[in-house]
Amino acid sequence: MDSNIVLATKEYNVVGTRPIRHDGTDKVTGRAQYGDDIHLPGLLYGKVLRSPYSHARIKSIDATRALAHPEVRAVVTAADFPQPLGLAEDLAEGAMQNPLFTSNNTLATDKALYKGHAIAAVAATSPHVAEEALSLIDVEYEVLPPVMDAVEALKDDAPVLHERLATIASFSTRAGGLRREDDQGKSSNLANRFTVEIGDLEQGFSDADVVVEREFKTEAVHQGYIEPHSATAHWGADGRITIWCSSQGHFGARDTVASILAIPVSSIRVIPMEIGGGFGGKLTYYLEPVAAVLSKKTGRPVKLTMSRTEVFEGTGPTSGGYIRVKVGVTKDGRMTAADSQLLYDAGAFPGSPASGGAACVYGCYDIPNARVEGLDVVTNRPKVAAYRAPGVPAATFGFEQVLDEICKKLDMDPLEFRLLNASKEGTRQVTGPRFGRIGCVETVQAAKDHDHYSAPLEGPNRGRGVAGGFWRNNTGASSATAAVNADGTVSLVEGSADIGGTRAVSAQQCAEVLGIPAEDVHPMVGDTDSIGYTSNTGGSGVAFKTGWACYQAAHDVRRQMIDRAATIWDVSPEDVDYADGAIFHKSDSELRFTFKELARRLNGTGGPITGRANVEPGGVGAAFAIHIVDVEVDPDTGKVDILRYTALQDVGKAVHPSYVEGQIQGGVSQGVGWALNEEYFYNDKGEMANSSFLDYRMPTSLDLPMIDTVIVEVANPGHPYGVRGVGECPIVPPMAAVANAIHNAVGVRMNNLPMSPGNVLEALWEKQAR
Amino acid sequence: MDSNIVLATKEYNVVGTRPIRHDGTDKVTGRAQYGDDIHLPGLLYGKVLRSPYSHARIKSIDATRALAHPEVRAVVTAADFPQPLGLAEDLAEGAMQNPLFTSNNTLATDKALYKGHAIAAVAATSPHVAEEALSLIDVEYEVLPPVMDAVEALKDDAPVLHERLATIASFSTRAGGLRREDDQGKSSNLANRFTVEIGDLEQGFSDADVVVEREFKTEAVHQGYIEPHSATAHWGADGRITIWCSSQGHFGARDTVASILAIPVSSIRVIPMEIGGGFGGKLTYYLEPVAAVLSKKTGRPVKLTMSRTEVFEGTGPTSGGYIRVKVGVTKDGRMTAADSQLLYDAGAFPGSPASGGAACVYGCYDIPNARVEGLDVVTNRPKVAAYRAPGVPAATFGFEQVLDEICKKLDMDPLEFRLLNASKEGTRQVTGPRFGRIGCVETVQAAKDHDHYSAPLEGPNRGRGVAGGFWRNNTGASSATAAVNADGTVSLVEGSADIGGTRAVSAQQCAEVLGIPAEDVHPMVGDTDSIGYTSNTGGSGVAFKTGWACYQAAHDVRRQMIDRAATIWDVSPEDVDYADGAIFHKSDSELRFTFKELARRLNGTGGPITGRANVEPGGVGAAFAIHIVDVEVDPDTGKVDILRYTALQDVGKAVHPSYVEGQIQGGVSQGVGWALNEEYFYNDKGEMANSSFLDYRMPTSLDLPMIDTVIVEVANPGHPYGVRGVGECPIVPPMAAVANAIHNAVGVRMNNLPMSPGNVLEALWEKQAR
Repeated sequence: MDSNIVLATKEYNVVGTRPIRHDGTDKVTGRAQYGDDIHLPGLLYGKVLRSPYSHARIKSIDATRALAHPEVRAVVTAADFPQPLGLAEDLAEGAMQNPLFTSNNTLATDKALYKGHAIAAVAATSPHVAEEALSLIDVEYEVLPPVMDAVEALKDDAPVLHERLATIASFSTRAGGLRREDDQGKSSNLANRFTVEIGDLEQGFSDADVVVEREFKTEAVHQGYIEPHSATAHWGADGRITIWCSSQGHFGARDTVASILAIPVSSIRVIPMEIGGGFGGKLTYYLEPVAAVLSKKTGRPVKLTMSRTEVFEGTGPTSGGYIRVKVGVTKDGRMTAADSQLLYDAGAFPGSPASGGAACVYGCYDIPNARVEGLDVVTNRPKVAAYRAPGVPAATFGFEQVLDEICKKLDMDPLEFRLLNASKEGTRQVTGPRFGRIGCVETVQAAKDHDHYSAPLEGPNRGRGVAGGFWRNNTGASSATAAVNADGTVSLVEGSADIGGTRAVSAQQCAEVLGIPAEDVHPMVGDTDSIGYTSNTGGSGVAFKTGWACYQAAHDVRRQMIDRAATIWDVSPEDVDYADGAIFHKSDSELRFTFKELARRLNGTGGPITGRANVEPGGVGAAFAIHIVDVEVDPDTGKVDILRYTALQDVGKAVHPSYVEGQIQGGVSQGVGWALNEEYFYNDKGEMANSSFLDYRMPTSLDLPMIDTVIVEVANPGHPYGVRGVGECPIVPPMAAVANAIHNAVGVRMNNLPMSPGNVLEALWEKQAR
Repeated sequence: MDSNIVLATKEYNVVGTRPIRHDGTDKVTGRAQYGDDIHLPGLLYGKVLRSPYSHARIKSIDATRALAHPEVRAVVTAADFPQPLGLAEDLAEGAMQNPLFTSNNTLATDKALYKGHAIAAVAATSPHVAEEALSLIDVEYEVLPPVMDAVEALKDDAPVLHERLATIASFSTRAGGLRREDDQGKSSNLANRFTVEIGDLEQGFSDADVVVEREFKTEAVHQGYIEPHSATAHWGADGRITIWCSSQGHFGARDTVASILAIPVSSIRVIPMEIGGGFGGKLTYYLEPVAAVLSKKTGRPVKLTMSRTEVFEGTGPTSGGYIRVKVGVTKDGRMTAADSQLLYDAGAFPGSPASGGAACVYGCYDIPNARVEGLDVVTNRPKVAAYRAPGVPAATFGFEQVLDEICKKLDMDPLEFRLLNASKEGTRQVTGPRFGRIGCVETVQAAKDHDHYSAPLEGPNRGRGVAGGFWRNNTGASSATAAVNADGTVSLVEGSADIGGTRAVSAQQCAEVLGIPAEDVHPMVGDTDSIGYTSNTGGSGVAFKTGWACYQAAHDVRRQMIDRAATIWDVSPEDVDYADGAIFHKSDSELRFTFKELARRLNGTGGPITGRANVEPGGVGAAFAIHIVDVEVDPDTGKVDILRYTALQDVGKAVHPSYVEGQIQGGVSQGVGWALNEEYFYNDKGEMANSSFLDYRMPTSLDLPMIDTVIVEVANPGHPYGVRGVGECPIVPPMAAVANAIHNAVGVRMNNLPMSPGNVLEALWEKQAR
C-alpha cells in the first residue's frame, strides 16, 4: 500500500495502482496535437478586434477598408449572429447560461463592456495579414465611464452596464438552483441576489459566547493555463460544421455554438484536440462561433488562436469580491451560528460563482444556524469563468481566518476545533440536503496525526497555519464504448476531454472489471459524432461519472464474453462465470478461456464484442481537505516563503494515486499563487496593466517546496469503486492556510488578497504603528 | 414504387427510398479527404524502388549513397521486416493470406519476381528528393529468364519462381476452403490444384445428347480505381502506430501491418480516409508496412503515394487465365453434366481467384453432375488482387458462351434454356451446399418479359446476346454504435469503409427501425480504435452485414427509449411500445413522446442513450443476374459498339435503389471494358507496355449507352430487410453477353479476351478464310 494513503479502502488489482499514463508518450514526444496544431488545406487565419475601452457605446463598425484588402476574406461582427433572446427552447443540457449574454460576450453588440471585449473578427490568408487588417476596421466608439469594482458598482451613481439587466437577469437564477430574493425592476449592476439559510440565525448568535465578524477582499485571478484558446472551424456547403478545438468539453463547445448560431446541435461535429490546461477556464467558448461564421462566409476552414494578452483580457478569470463573515461559538468551541455575505464580481455579464461559494463555504462544519447571502454584480471587466471550485476559495479565505481567530480567542487547537465541529453523515448543509457518508472527521484526524502538525517550527518570523476546504463535486451524463480487439486488448472510447490523466483512470476502471492490465485498455477521447453525449470535464466529475461509464461498458463486455463462451461450449450462460480475467464453467474445469484466448476467438463464433454504457449517475461524494503550511515572513520586504506544505484530502478512492497527488499539488500551487502574488492589476483607465506571464506573477518551481500529500480514502458508497472527485478541493484551503500561517508568524491578519510583499509590508507597518 | 423494380418486396418508410447521400456534399465540394490529403507537421515523403526486371536474383542492396544524401532520412528493405514463417499463430481473422508471401510481395527478399516488385523504399524531406534518391540505392541483380504465361509456367522447362513452393503452398489451401488434391513435393509454379465435384460426371455426359467443349483465354485486367494507393504512418516512441490510408478495410490494413511486422494489432490505429475506388484492389496493403517502418526509423510521419504506373505495375490486377468448358445437354435442353478447368495466373505469389471461379461458374444452373478443376499458377507478373466477383467473370465468359452455342445447336431460345435449367431453392451447388430462397428464375423471367428482349434489332452487323451471372456474396463481422443527440438525430458509427454509398444504406437501415428520416441519422466511418472490429468492405457484404449491425444498434436504442419513457412515466416497460417514430403507453393515450421529444429529455432522466451492435450474420443471400446487350460490329475495323444494354439482377431488397442501379451500371461498364479493350500488354522482355491510363484503354462515357437496370427483389429470408449483395454480380455476365452478341451479329466466336478491334478483325478474316 502507498505510504501516503490513510484509511485505505478495499484493494483492487488495477484501481489504486500507478500505471504509466496511456497518453504520456504522445505528450512528451510532441505527437499530441493541441488546439493550434490543426492544419487544413486552404486554411484561413482569423484575428479578433477587441475594444480598447473598458466601457463604450459602439456607434458603428465599418469593415469596408479591411474587406478591400486583397488578402482579407471576411469580417464578422455581432450582426452576423442571430442574437437569441433568453433561454432557447431547444437548448441542450450543459449550456445553462443565458445564450444572449454568451453571444454578446463572444461578439459585442451595442456596447463594449470591457477592454478586450471582442468587437469583430477578420479572416485572411495569413495570421499577419489578419492582424494587420484589424486596424482597417473602423469602429466609432462613444467612450463611457467604467466601473471596475463590484462594491462601487452597487452605488447609486455607478455607471450601469446593462440597461435591461433587471429583466434579463431573471434567467440566470436557473444556473445555481438557488432562490432569487427580489427583483428591483430597475436597471442596476446587481445581476442576482439570493440567500441560503438553515436554522434560526438570531437564536444561534444569541447562543454564542464569542462572536467574530470580519471583512475580506480578493482580486480577480486567472487560471493561467499554458495553452491559449484556439479554434478552427469548417462550415461545409451542406451546413455541416466541423470544429477542432481544445476545451473542457467538446459537447459543451458544440452546444454553445449551436445556441449562439441557432442551429441544431447535430449539424456540428466537434473534434477534441488535446488541452494544455483549463482549470475551468476552458468551459467557456469564445472563438468557436466566430471561426464558424468566418468559415461560412469564406467557404474555407478558419483558425483563430489567442495571444497571451488576449487570454488575460478577453477570457474569464475568476471573481474578485468582497466577503463578510460573522461566526458565533460557545466557550467550549461549538459553532452556533454563521452568517456570510459574498459580493462577487461577475465581470461584464451576470454569472459570478457566488452560488458555489454559498453552497460550499461552510461544508466542513456542522453549524445548526447558518446563512449566506450572495450578490452577483457586473463590472467593466472580462466576464468571469469557472476556476477550480468556483466561488469557494475566496469565501473560504475569509471564513477559515475567522475560525482561526476564534481558536486563538478560545485558546483552542485549530484542528481540535475543526474536529469538534466537523461535518458527518447526516449533517445538514446550508443549502438544505444532509451529507451521506463523508470523510471530514477522518481527514481532520489524519492532519492531527501527521508529523507535520507536531513538528517543531524554529526560527523567527515563522508560523504554521491550517485551513479546511470543501467542494461538493459534480456528476453529469457520460458515455463510453469498449471494443475487444483480437489480441486481447480493449479499445475504450470516452467522451470526456482528458485534463488530468482521466484516460488512465477510465482505462483502469474498465480493466478492473475485466481483470486485465490497465495497459491492455487503450483509451481515446471520441469526437461528438463518435461517442454518446458526455457532459463537460468539470466539477471534479470525470473519474466519477466517466469512470462509472467505463465500468458499466466493461460489464457489458463481460456479460457478452460469458454468453459467447457459453455458446462455444454449448452450455447455459448461467453455468459460466468470469473472474480474474478468465471465463470459466462453474463446474467443468476443462472449460476455461482467458480473456485473451476468448478475444482471439470472437470472429467466427458470433462476431466482435463491444460494450457500451451511458450513465448519469447520482451518488456523487463530497471532498474534504485540511492543509497545513509553514511560512517564513521576511519582515524587511514582506516576502512570504513557503517552508513546508502538507495537503490531506478525502478522495474516496484514489484510482491512480499519482494523478490524485498531482491534482492536489497542482491545486496547492495555484492556491499559493493566488494567496501570495496573483491579481488582475488595473490602471486608472480600467486597463489591465499586467496581461503577460512576465507581469502576472504565477508561482514557479523555485517558489514552492515539495508539496506533501496525504490521500484519505473514505469510500463513496455512491460509486462502484468509492470514487469522489479530487481536482477542485485542493485549491480551496491554501489562501486561508497561508494567511493563518502569516498571522502565526508575524501576528498580522491579512484580510486582503494577494498577500504580496507590498501588502504584507503595509500590514506589518500598520501593526508596528499600533 | 420505382418503375424499374420488379417483384418488389415489402414497402418500408426509409428502406427502399432514395435520400441524398450523407457524404455527397463532402465529395462534390472537395471537403472529403482521400488518402493523399493527409498533412502532418514534420511529414517525410517516401518513394519505392521497384525492380526493372521481371525475374532476377537480388544479390545485394547498398543504400550507402542514398543515406549520404543530406535530405534523405531512411531507407527500408525486406531486411527490416521480421519475415514471418507461414501462418502466424495469432493472426487475426481477415488476414488469411500467407504472411510470408504478403511480406515478400511488399518488399522483395532474395528475388524480384516481377517488373515493379518493390525492392526498397526511401524517406526524404520532399517527394522529389525521395524520387531522386532511388537512383542512389545500388541493387545488384542477377537477371533470370521470366515466365509470363500461366500455361507456359506449367511446362517442365519453365523458369521456377519459388524454390520452396511445394512446401509453402500447403498453407494457401485454407483460403478457399477447398480440398487440395495433391502435392508434388518438388518445386513447380503450380501453387495449388483442387477439384470440386457433385454427382457422377461420366454418367452425366453419357446421358447427354449434345456435348460441347471449348477453350478460352483471358488477359489480366486492372480494377482501374481513380485514386492511387497512399499510406501515411507515424510510429510513436511508445510503439503505438497511427496509419492514415485509403482502403477497403482499415481493420484489414491494421491486421496486415501487424502480421508483416509481427506486432499486436492493438498497437496500430488505422484512420480511414475516403476511398477513390477499390473494386477489390484495395483489400491488399502495399505501402502501409513500408511507411510504418520508415516512420520507425525516422521518428517522423512518412507518406507514400503511388504513381499510376506504380499502380499498374506494383499492385494486383485480376488473373488472366486459360478456361476449358465442357457441357452436356439432352435434346430437350436439360443440362446433364458440366466439367470445367480454370487455370488462373496468380502472378508472382500463390493466390489466384480460381476457387471463387470454381464455386460460382455454375451458380445459375441446376446441373446434377458437375466438376470444376482449379489450378493456381505463379508467373512473373504482379501478384493478382481481388476484382469484383474474383475469378467468376473469366470462367463465366467461357461457360455462358458454351451455353449459347448449345442453344444454337438445339435451336432453343437462350432465356428459355436458362429458365429450364435455372437454380432454385434446394438446388445443390457444385461446392456441396443447397440454395435457400433465391431469385434466379424470377430474374430470367424478368429478362424474358423485358421489352429489350423482344425489341426488333434492325440493320447489318448487329446482334443481341444474353448471359447469366452468379455471385455468392459474403458476410463477416461488423460493428455499429448509434448515439442519440439532443436534437433528435442519431450519430451512427460504423466500421465499414464506404465505397458504394454504404453510409446512406447503413443510415437508412438504422432510421427504418427508429421511424425517423434517413437525414436524421448521421453516419460516420470510425477508425480501428473507435469502433469494434469490422471485416473488409468486400464480397458485396456491407449493405448486408453492416446494415444488419446498424439495424441491431437501432433496436438497442429503441429498447432503451422504451425503458426511459417507462421510467419517466413511472410505468412498466411492458406497457410501453414504439412505432412510427413515437414511444407511447399502450393504453394511456396521454403518455406519448415522439423520438425527438424524448431525445431532448434524455439528459436529466438517466443520461444519454447509445445503441451498439456487433454481428457476424449467417444467412447471406446469393445474387443472380441476366444481361441483355445489343452490339454493332464494324466489319472494316473490328470495332464493337454497344447499342443497348439492360442488366437485371436479384438484389433481395434495394435499400437505396439509386446506389443499386449505380453499382450495376458500374459493374457493366467495367465488364464492357474488360470485354472489349482492357488487358495487361507485355513486351518480349516481360515489361508491361501500357501502364498508363492513356494506353490502358478503359471505357469512357463516349463508349457506352445509358445502361438500363432492372432491380428484381426476391427478399433474402436471412436478412431483416431481405438484403442480398449487389456490387460484384454485375461484372460477371458482360464479357459473355457481348461475345454472344458479337456471334449473333457477325457469326464469329470470340474465345479470347479482349474482343478488341484487332482481335475481332482477325476472327472475321479467319471466318472469311474458312
